[in-house]
Formats: sequence, structure tokens, C-alpha cells
Amino acid sequence: MDDITLTYTQLWQFAYNVFIKINCSEEQARLATDVLLSADLRGIDSHGVARLSGYVRLWEVNRVNSKPSIRIVHETPSTAVVDGDSGLGLVVAPKAMEIAIEKARIAGTGWVAVKNSNHFGIAGYHAMMALPHDMIGMAMTNASPLVAPTFSVERLLGTNPICVAIPAGEQPSFVADFATTTAANGKLEILQRKNQEAPEGWIQKKDGSVSINPNELKDGGALLPLGSDREHGSHKGFCLGAWVDIFSAVLSGANYGPWVPPFVSFLAPPADPVGEGIGHFFGAMRVDAFRPAVEFKHHMDNWITRFRSAKTIEGKSQLIIPGDPERESEMIRREKGIPMNAKVVEDLKALGTKLDITF
Amino acid sequence: MDDITLTYTQLWQFAYNVFIKINCSEEQARLATDVLLSADLRGIDSHGVARLSGYVRLWEVNRVNSKPSIRIVHETPSTAVVDGDSGLGLVVAPKAMEIAIEKARIAGTGWVAVKNSNHFGIAGYHAMMALPHDMIGMAMTNASPLVAPTFSVERLLGTNPICVAIPAGEQPSFVADFATTTAANGKLEILQRKNQEAPEGWIQKKDGSVSINPNELKDGGALLPLGSDREHGSHKGFCLGAWVDIFSAVLSGANYGPWVPPFVSFLAPPADPVGEGIGHFFGAMRVDAFRPAVEFKHHMDNWITRFRSAKTIEGKSQLIIPGDPERESEMIRREKGIPMNAKVVEDLKALGTKLDITF
Repeated sequence: MDDITLTYTQLWQFAYNVFIKINCSEEQARLATDVLLSADLRGIDSHGVARLSGYVRLWEVNRVNSKPSIRIVHETPSTAVVDGDSGLGLVVAPKAMEIAIEKARIAGTGWVAVKNSNHFGIAGYHAMMALPHDMIGMAMTNASPLVAPTFSVERLLGTNPICVAIPAGEQPSFVADFATTTAANGKLEILQRKNQEAPEGWIQKKDGSVSINPNELKDGGALLPLGSDREHGSHKGFCLGAWVDIFSAVLSGANYGPWVPPFVSFLAPPADPVGEGIGHFFGAMRVDAFRPAVEFKHHMDNWITRFRSAKTIEGKSQLIIPGDPERESEMIRREKGIPMNAKVVEDLKALGTKLDITF
Repeated sequence: MDDITLTYTQLWQFAYNVFIKINCSEEQARLATDVLLSADLRGIDSHGVARLSGYVRLWEVNRVNSKPSIRIVHETPSTAVVDGDSGLGLVVAPKAMEIAIEKARIAGTGWVAVKNSNHFGIAGYHAMMALPHDMIGMAMTNASPLVAPTFSVERLLGTNPICVAIPAGEQPSFVADFATTTAANGKLEILQRKNQEAPEGWIQKKDGSVSINPNELKDGGALLPLGSDREHGSHKGFCLGAWVDIFSAVLSGANYGPWVPPFVSFLAPPADPVGEGIGHFFGAMRVDAFRPAVEFKHHMDNWITRFRSAKTIEGKSQLIIPGDPERESEMIRREKGIPMNAKVVEDLKALGTKLDITF
């Protein structure tokens, strides 16, 4: 089936109506919609409205609380732990990031660990909240176990993404937002839909052997940490995924590793939780806590310009600076609309019918 | 030539005498020696006494100041920028990490960016300084450009390592210390010495094409970011290396990217510096700035135990927890001595003769 192009406004209004229908306050529905749609704009289709019916199903089985009381349970001048009260991660995460920014305003930096949350959309949205304040933003989250660490046949970690957003001056900001696996799960889902093979090094079979079948995950296989295999540094990808897991969940009191509850409502959370919900970790650092912002941004411009103009391999016109592809996607999609997979559109229509919302 | 085994004490005394000979104070010589030798103990042979004569040569050409006045040039409650005054990174780095720990004691976390420094040995030493204080430690540094970002034929980044050290309770600490490339430069040097080929994905030729010749670096080739190629996520390895570069140098006012001065004394630093010396970045976070330390360490023990006992692929008895190999190396080498490459021993003997120090 061909993609169907919809406008940002159409999709925004629909998602907003859905969040209102599941009893979110207007403010929280607006925030959740902004965060969710930022994924569709930025070209990270797996994390946008394609997941909307998934959030609704979690609410239906009482695993998402649409009226959460999000609160700080512990703090110091530069840190806080936030209890998300089972709220939508789409709402809990930006609230926690705001706290990090407030802390940074006074202490120079702010670091917030979050427990008792749910899937927070794209890490990039939250980290980028720091940019207008001339701050560096960081965001990370753990997620349902899909990844086998080096030498493991068990899935013990999520794709555990990290985002680092750094302001520049004339140049667009540096925004690195990436899963700590060789390939994000969203890329695998695309191959599954198109019935295509995956490159070697993305996935393994349930016995740990090499596979190029993207459906292997449904049969006990696993995604691989960045680096693919030991010889190519998969133990480093494991370090990254583990780091995200520990900062997000062991610091905050959320579930970690294989105990992280699944995003899908048809799989029950582990019966023996080690914490509450899933965990996130956010950071904000005032640039001028280190050197004057003007000076810093001047050097960021110089950094970006130098890297972007580096001599390239044949067939490539320039280096890709982290954040370039997503920014370009957003420019195009705001103007020309968002191409949606036909199956996703069907799913949204069904959701509209179920909730009595016009699509 | 076979390896020659020397005791920790022998090597320590020799390195200490060398640092005294180049006019370090007793305190700084002791510190530099401890940091340098920690690499030999932990099995990271490329960063230990093998580099000693390199530091001396930098001092000879006035690129290392053995009487530095290391000072804070800017600070907030949770941050500081330190000017290393061209001191040995081996001395500047632990001083900066001490400042991060002091900041964390009061503000919950402490973050220190360093400019005007030199090679700091292994990142692990500095990050691990946080552990006895029940703090999480982080250390990163930029380094001479050897790495070509995705699509680049130019070498624009160093191997830019990151270390994250996290305390546990009964279990040994979690210590992830890794170069943000597929393989560390030290591994390539071993292949060069043994005249062996490198796996595909570690290096590229000067035109950006695939190579398995570890000597390619001497002919304009480059190391590759973690992930090896775009299909396997090298853009994520590039993100990591860039992140380290920006935190270490753009925040602090050191040289970044292709402007980082080379470690070797026979290559002059770039004529158009964009900052001072090389840069580092350190962090310390009090665990109890988030939750009670006892509780945190209990869950770290649970995390480590669960991961270490995961079901493994055939032929592997258990997962490797970050820090396991280095800790085991240290135990063995403290007891049985440190096996040294014969060429390195020759180099140390020549250094001893030159400086009139018994080896």
C-alpha cells in the first residue's frame, strides 16, 4: 500500500482529541500531542502517532494514569528524583526536563531521574527543551528488553536511546539522538512490513547465532548493541545501553534490565518488579556555567562548519552533522505534510471509530 | 621477542624517578606515576609506561609544563572550568576530578571542564576516584585526530574515550571505560607490532575505502567510529566522539576536532589553534542525591548479578560486566608482575640511560 500524506494540523487535532478522550487535562493533552507529533515531524515515524493506539491500550488496562500527580520525591541543589505517578511519559518527561532546567538556572546544572513513567516518545524533544535557554540538554530512557548484551542469548536491555542537544550560534544546534543498538527497532519494523532482509549485525537468533531475518525478534531473537559483535565493539554498545538503564532506573527507583514493563498492553509486566514503571534521566547544563555563551556558540559554529565542510568519500557531498536529517525532515513535513504508512492510517481510523472521534 | 615481566614496584619507582627528573614536585610525580601505572595494572598497556618517553619528549619541547599552576578560572555551585597550565594530564585530570567531587558533596553533582592539558592516561582512573565517596564518576577526553567521521576521508576526531564508574555494594563496581571507535588505537598498535591484519570495519584507507592493513594510519588512513559503517551505526559512534570533543574542549576553551595537538613531540601542533591544549570533562554525582546509597547499591548488586548470570551463547560461560576484565588484570598483575613488550622495555632502558636513572 502507498503512503498517505496528512497535514501536521490534522494529525495534531486527532491525537489531541484522543488524549482528551482518555481523560487527560487540556494542558497535558496539548503537551502529549506536541511531544508525540514531534517524532512524526522529525522523521522518526516509529515514535509518533503510529504509537497512539498503543498508549490508549495501556490506559485501558490501567497501566497509564491520565490524571497523574507528577512530583519531586527527593532533591538537592542540582538533582531531583521525580515520581511520574504512572502518567504518560509524553507528559512526565517534559515536566521532569523543566525541573532540570530550573535547577540549572540556579546551580549551573540540573539532573533529574524519573521513576514510575511510561514510553516518553523521542528523546530529542526533551533534550532540545534546553536549547532556547542557552543550555545543553540531555535525555535518556530505558525500555522493554529487546537487546542481548555481548555473549547473551537473553534480551536484557531496551534500545535505550540517548540524546545530547547542544546550542550553536548561526549554525543549527547539534542534536545527537540515537538508540544504543546497531539499528533502532523502528528500522526493523519497516523491514518487517516490507518483507525485506536486515543487514548482518543487527539481530541474532534465539540461540545467539547470526540472522538477517527481521522477524527473528518474534521468535526469541534479539537486537544487538551498537558494534554488532565483540570484534566490532558490541561490548561498548552494551556499556552504553547499561549506562542508560542504570541512570534511568537504578538511580530513580524504576524497573531496570529484564524487569522493564513491556510497552504493549497484551504482555503483562513482570510479576516480580524491582521498581516502579520505566525510568528516564535528564540533564541541563547552562553553557555560561562554563564560559560566556556568545564565545561558546561562536566555537560551536566553527566546529560545525569545519566538520560539515570536511573532504568526503566519493559519492557524498558533505558530512552529516547530528540533527541535520531530522531538522530537514521537519522543515519539509511542516510544509508538505507527513507521509503516513497506510496500515498506520487504518489503525488510526479504527481508533477514531472506537473512541467516536472524527479522523 | 618475548614479553618481559616486571613488578609493579620496579616500574612505579622508575616512572617516579623520571617524573622527578623532569622537575615535577614529589607530590605531582607520585600522582602522575599512580595514574600512569594504573593503566599497566588494568591491562590497558598502550596507556601505561609505554607512553612514558612520549611525555618526556613533550616536556623537552616545552609542550608539557612540569610545574603547572592548575587553577579554576570560572565556577558555579555545580560546575568549574580548570586551566591545566600545560601540566601533565596525569596530574591535571585527578586535580580536576577532585574539584568535581568537592562540588558534588555540596551541590549533589559536580562537572568540571578542563583546558590547556595534555594526555591524561586512562579515563578509568579519574572516574573511579568517585567510587569511595559513594558517587558515580565520569571522565572523558579529546585526543589527536585519528578518526574519520561517517562519510569523511579526513581525520577529525580522536579516539575520545568515555568512562562511567558506578558503585555497587557486595559486587565490584560497574566501570565502563571505552574509546568511542570500533577499536582503540592501542589494539591497532599491537597488530602493527605483530604484523597481523585488522578485522574489516576498524580502519579505512586515505580515500575512505575498506582496509585491513593496520599500517594504513601511517599513510593517511583513519580509524572508524564505533559502528564501523553507516549501515551498522557509525554515525552513532561519530555522535559519541563529537559529544566527548564538544564537552571536553568547546565547553572548556581547549582545542577541538582537527585542531587538537598531537601527542607525539615530532609533530608540531596546528599553527592556528582554536583553544589551549587538549580538553577533558569530568563528572561526579552523589548517589544519595537521588536515593539512599544503601538502597542504590543493593539494586546495583541485583543488576550486576542478574546480568552476569544471564544465559549465554555456546562457548561462553558468562556475560562480561563492564570493569570485570580490568579488575581481574589488576589482581593478577599486582601479584605476578606486569608483562611488558620487549620493545617497550628497550625504550624504557634507553630513557633511563638518557636521564641517568637506573632501570
